[in-house]
Amino acid sequence: MDGDGASSTGATPSEEMNGTGNLMDFLDEPFPDVGTYEDFHTIDWLREKSRDTDRHRKITTKSKESYWELIKSLLDAWSGWVVMLLIGMLTGTLAGVIDLAVDWMTDLKEGVCLSALYYSREQCCWTSNETTFDDRDKCPQWQKWAELMTGHSEGAGAYVLNYFLYVLWALLFSFLAVSLVRVFAPYACGSGIPEIKTILSGFIIRGYLGKWTLLIKTVTLVLAVSSGLSLGKEGPLVHVACCCGNLFCSLFSKYSKNEGKRREVLSAAAAAGVSVAFGAPIGGVLFSLEEVSYYFPLKTLWRSFFAALVAAFTLRAINPFGNSRLVLFYVEYHTPWYMAELVPFILLGVFGGLWGALFIRGNIAWCRRRKTTLLGKYPVLEVIVITGITAVLAFPNPYTRRSTSELISELFNDCGALESSQLCDYVNNPNMSRPVDDIPDRPAGPGVYSALWQLALALIFKIVITIFTFGMKIPSGLFIPSMAVGAIAGRIVGIAVEQMAYHHHDWIIFKNWCRPGADCVTPGLYAMVGAAACLGGVTRMTVSLVVIMFELTGGLEYIVPLMAAAVTSKWVADAFGKEGIYESHIQLNGYPYLDVRDEFTHRTLATDVMRPRRSEPPLAVLTQDSTTVEDVETLIKDTDYNGFPVVVSRESERLIGFVQRRELTVAIKTARQKQDGVVSSSVVYFTEDNPQVAEACDPQPLKLRRILNLSPFTVTDHTPMETVVDIFRKLGLRQCLVTRSGRLLGIITKKDVLRHMAQMMNQDPESIMFN
Amino acid sequence: MDGDGASSTGATPSEEMNGTGNLMDFLDEPFPDVGTYEDFHTIDWLREKSRDTDRHRKITTKSKESYWELIKSLLDAWSGWVVMLLIGMLTGTLAGVIDLAVDWMTDLKEGVCLSALYYSREQCCWTSNETTFDDRDKCPQWQKWAELMTGHSEGAGAYVLNYFLYVLWALLFSFLAVSLVRVFAPYACGSGIPEIKTILSGFIIRGYLGKWTLLIKTVTLVLAVSSGLSLGKEGPLVHVACCCGNLFCSLFSKYSKNEGKRREVLSAAAAAGVSVAFGAPIGGVLFSLEEVSYYFPLKTLWRSFFAALVAAFTLRAINPFGNSRLVLFYVEYHTPWYMAELVPFILLGVFGGLWGALFIRGNIAWCRRRKTTLLGKYPVLEVIVITGITAVLAFPNPYTRRSTSELISELFNDCGALESSQLCDYVNNPNMSRPVDDIPDRPAGPGVYSALWQLALALIFKIVITIFTFGMKIPSGLFIPSMAVGAIAGRIVGIAVEQMAYHHHDWIIFKNWCRPGADCVTPGLYAMVGAAACLGGVTRMTVSLVVIMFELTGGLEYIVPLMAAAVTSKWVADAFGKEGIYESHIQLNGYPYLDVRDEFTHRTLATDVMRPRRSEPPLAVLTQDSTTVEDVETLIKDTDYNGFPVVVSRESERLIGFVQRRELTVAIKTARQKQDGVVSSSVVYFTEDNPQVAEACDPQPLKLRRILNLSPFTVTDHTPMETVVDIFRKLGLRQCLVTRSGRLLGIITKKDVLRHMAQMMNQDPESIMFN
Repeated sequence: MDGDGASSTGATPSEEMNGTGNLMDFLDEPFPDVGTYEDFHTIDWLREKSRDTDRHRKITTKSKESYWELIKSLLDAWSGWVVMLLIGMLTGTLAGVIDLAVDWMTDLKEGVCLSALYYSREQCCWTSNETTFDDRDKCPQWQKWAELMTGHSEGAGAYVLNYFLYVLWALLFSFLAVSLVRVFAPYACGSGIPEIKTILSGFIIRGYLGKWTLLIKTVTLVLAVSSGLSLGKEGPLVHVACCCGNLFCSLFSKYSKNEGKRREVLSAAAAAGVSVAFGAPIGGVLFSLEEVSYYFPLKTLWRSFFAALVAAFTLRAINPFGNSRLVLFYVEYHTPWYMAELVPFILLGVFGGLWGALFIRGNIAWCRRRKTTLLGKYPVLEVIVITGITAVLAFPNPYTRRSTSELISELFNDCGALESSQLCDYVNNPNMSRPVDDIPDRPAGPGVYSALWQLALALIFKIVITIFTFGMKIPSGLFIPSMAVGAIAGRIVGIAVEQMAYHHHDWIIFKNWCRPGADCVTPGLYAMVGAAACLGGVTRMTVSLVVIMFELTGGLEYIVPLMAAAVTSKWVADAFGKEGIYESHIQLNGYPYLDVRDEFTHRTLATDVMRPRRSEPPLAVLTQDSTTVEDVETLIKDTDYNGFPVVVSRESERLIGFVQRRELTVAIKTARQKQDGVVSSSVVYFTEDNPQVAEACDPQPLKLRRILNLSPFTVTDHTPMETVVDIFRKLGLRQCLVTRSGRLLGIITKKDVLRHMAQMMNQDPESIMFN
Repeated sequence: MDGDGASSTGATPSEEMNGTGNLMDFLDEPFPDVGTYEDFHTIDWLREKSRDTDRHRKITTKSKESYWELIKSLLDAWSGWVVMLLIGMLTGTLAGVIDLAVDWMTDLKEGVCLSALYYSREQCCWTSNETTFDDRDKCPQWQKWAELMTGHSEGAGAYVLNYFLYVLWALLFSFLAVSLVRVFAPYACGSGIPEIKTILSGFIIRGYLGKWTLLIKTVTLVLAVSSGLSLGKEGPLVHVACCCGNLFCSLFSKYSKNEGKRREVLSAAAAAGVSVAFGAPIGGVLFSLEEVSYYFPLKTLWRSFFAALVAAFTLRAINPFGNSRLVLFYVEYHTPWYMAELVPFILLGVFGGLWGALFIRGNIAWCRRRKTTLLGKYPVLEVIVITGITAVLAFPNPYTRRSTSELISELFNDCGALESSQLCDYVNNPNMSRPVDDIPDRPAGPGVYSALWQLALALIFKIVITIFTFGMKIPSGLFIPSMAVGAIAGRIVGIAVEQMAYHHHDWIIFKNWCRPGADCVTPGLYAMVGAAACLGGVTRMTVSLVVIMFELTGGLEYIVPLMAAAVTSKWVADAFGKEGIYESHIQLNGYPYLDVRDEFTHRTLATDVMRPRRSEPPLAVLTQDSTTVEDVETLIKDTDYNGFPVVVSRESERLIGFVQRRELTVAIKTARQKQDGVVSSSVVYFTEDNPQVAEACDPQPLKLRRILNLSPFTVTDHTPMETVVDIFRKLGLRQCLVTRSGRLLGIITKKDVLRHMAQMMNQDPESIMFN
């Protein structure tokens, strides 16, 4: 019952039948299960839309009959908003639960809270009376494993024991995660965004958004993130939100029985997912619009916004970060930026673009290797090995030991006067009074220099390990690792610029804007710009990225640096390959995804793409009144086409309609069972009137006009392929018939279009998963 | 040369010819002026797109030939960003100049700055040494007219003189404005948004976005706003920005010669316009997406964002408000809102919806009266009379005397401790120390009560006068008047709730959240919510509205109240009529606009809509090889169709292509002039080979295959109209041919679709301006 359950029962067949949008013969007995799609097939958007209009029309007509029907029609009209409310609330709740669980389990790797086992370190110290504001690190209730087990918190023995337990917990978490995924829900792995993009573009992957996937993905996401692997929860949260959306779709037949309407809900759910991932509702809506969605009408825009807001406020009500902040990384800077700083910002953009290109190449190469070699056969082992390496290498470095989002948060923050972090170990002027904000630039102390070394090592480690991590059989997002890479690089650059400005403020480049004793450079801002650049390089987002970052800082002040870095990074990365990581994975997996952004500029015509080719046998067609039931059955058995054109006669080849394979099969089966006199030699006819039967002894003919689509989409053989691609994209067609002077010549399916586009771009056209 | 100069010369005809996207006969001599559109005609989006792809393909091919061509191709690729940069800079500059000029001229109605005549009151007092922070109203350099002329600043005589001069200046400004519009640029009147929506949907209105319109609209906008009429500059700023966009399009043939690409630039320009109008770049982009644009690909999203940012930062660099704030109404509230307050917020939403419905009905009725009666003949007199009434009624009331945006700004603001405004005349507790923020609720003093009366009068005045003002022959936006109505209503409600909460804090509804001595209610927030509600009721914006308001306050905190009010207001207003003010004006003016939001749910088929109807003469067609030049010329003379289908023969009626009237005319004219042997009896043929000429003495035939569009768009007669409407909308077609079993039956044009939709919605179908 889970997943794209388009085949869910209970549809009255007449309702389904109207879907073909033609004149119906209501006298004929209806038959069930028509109008749905098979797994791994493409939906027909026009047809879904038409079915929804029929449904809507019927409800409107009925609503005039009685008050009860009027109330039902009002409920139907409001169901969209209700679904959004439910999605928002469930997504927000799940995000809150995930945050709390991750916090607790991440800390469990290092120690435990004695006063309450279910407290994370922060909560533990927060509630402890012995912790004071000045000495925040003192927190006796929180004990590291070594301290708890041996009583010693210092020394080599304690270090080794902590190290050992850290690795052990990490291995345990990741083993649990990969096992759960393997056994219960194979679709729960990865970030899910490539598949969601594909589904939203009109593909059916049954079970991908099912209840089981939702449950397992939520649980394993917590395990995977807690294990300390270089992955984030943001991408998978989008998948989780879409699963919630799909779940609530099944409450209303309006959505559960219409694949087009369902996808409108899923688009909004994706927005809610990003909204809770970053606490950025507007950014979430724009992410859904820019990155994920395929068909995004204005109505969906409003509803996405509503769902994103509800989700964000539900999350705030749960308040997992304990600071009543909505956003994941709240920052507040006190100094403006200067024009000259655009140079390092743009350099960070270049770095982000290079990282994006490197990451995509490396990751795709590794994933391809996984698919084609023995490696793919041992996913559990792979996860264990990578987790082991990650944990062993991560523990010694304080910047990789903690969770990545804590790291990013620290890198983004400006050093206040009370900051105790190593990164803020500046040499203070003893004469300086201590204002809370607006501290002037100071020379870096030894702590900063050692932090720089550790950050540099962390940078290399993150870059390498992330390439191997993304794509394993556990839930894994790459927003956070990408941002971490960028934030580390940005912070390093930021500190370098700051120290240069402090020590050389007579240099011509600093002279104009940086007097001694002023607070000129904010290294945290550099970290943020770097994070945006790296995320942009990997995903090729621009507007939604900048808006998300804008929502984090809450000021328009820093939009220009962010924009400059994001655009530079996109341009640099685009120079190495047009596809972002999601498109690359879609291609790797061969999903039939027709990208809205790909511009098809080749000068080919419909006639070059249509089947049959010159060397192939002629097109399999039915005639309107001279095919027998047996002929049809042979045709269905011998071919695997999704449908057959119906022509007046084989000689004239004049097209009158198109009939779906699925509907034809069901119709003939039903007729054979229920309709007397239908035998193999019965003539199948699609005309309105009975065909002239030559003799009385002929078997009774079978009328199938009701399953005939009388408005198949046609183009002429001279239509340029760019127009054909445009039509497929904008109208969401499955197939299109090709005619010349009214004669049927051939057929172009979405698969042919994709194969042709791949051919034209010199890719391997056979890798596309075709149905 | 101004306007939608699609006919601008210099296009090499072969380039134009490629546009039809067919196999070309390059041997034939090309002829000029093909592929452009006439004024008040609809463009063919598919064709424009195809032409651009051809152009792009040509440049890409050439770029491999030499370095110079490579550089040219890079320049071409970057021209889009360059255009955006230019648009942003010019729009920002113009907005800054308009702001400064309006400030100065609005104050000129009341008095003058003696130290520098070109200073507005604020600048005058700001630069004066005698003004201190405590006594800000003392500003001797600024003199009212009466004081300057008679030396007395007080007394009845001075009041009357000031009153008289105020009215006189207002009349002078508005007379100048309307005269300039009448004489130089009739298109400069109104808000321009309905026309821009129509243009963006693919209609040609030549000169509407011309240089002359730009100049006159900028000047008259300043005059109209300064005259104190109840109108705003926000809508016209969008028109000004689009004029800038059109101006810079003419720099690059990529945009000036392609109506489709031009519209992408205009969409981005609209975003820049809203961005500077409110200082809200993200809101501007969403406004363009939600409200104005028709075709909005992702590429345009990025570019719009860029243009909007550049424009906002240019405006900030000019800094017209003197506070280095980006936004028009900057507000900062210190208290959160409470759940119980949602009730008044939703009531404000209902008020906004009712105001929207009332305004649209009233304004449309008045505009219709203007069109049909003598009133329309005297636009100058109308403006003078309305200005006179406005000025006479506005002067006595301090809330209407000043500029509307100042009024809104005051209403939005929370009362600080130092506020001297009458609205902040609360009774202070003498024991209270004076913190700058967070003042508890206090009882209202006499000033507040008198302010309430004046605000109530101002509300009635604004509601009535705005209905008569919008649509006059001067530039007039309605964002500001609508927001003013809402802000006044909201502030009144806010003060009422505040006083109730203060005096009755034991009531059950206040008990939970409002202890005595606490700051519970922020009347300024109510004003803001009211403004959003009224603006939403009139325009039916939702997401962009909330985002604009979010950018004004800079905090996610208040999104829920704004969202609740905006959505309530939209629902209430929608109950009285689906169209917003812009759609209503589009309908009133009969522009051929196919709204993306209208859902067509009627059960009609293509056969019910296509021409010819049963009673009409058969479709005017050409045959592929049996029509003579004379026949064609007669057909062109006798009909006014935009094009003619070409069929194999009149008997078989099998469609082979479509030929544009304009191209046919030019082709025959050119052939008659240049090609020997072409006479009236020459046969026109569209086939690839010469037709069999019966005898040698027959005149030389004329081959016209190169102007034949071999891929006309066809649907079958059984296609539901909802699908046809969808196709027209999404592909931007001009016409579509209707076939049955390969035979041509008829034609459906955009005009037929619009007329049918109007019929189905029981509107007057003949009011649509058809071409």
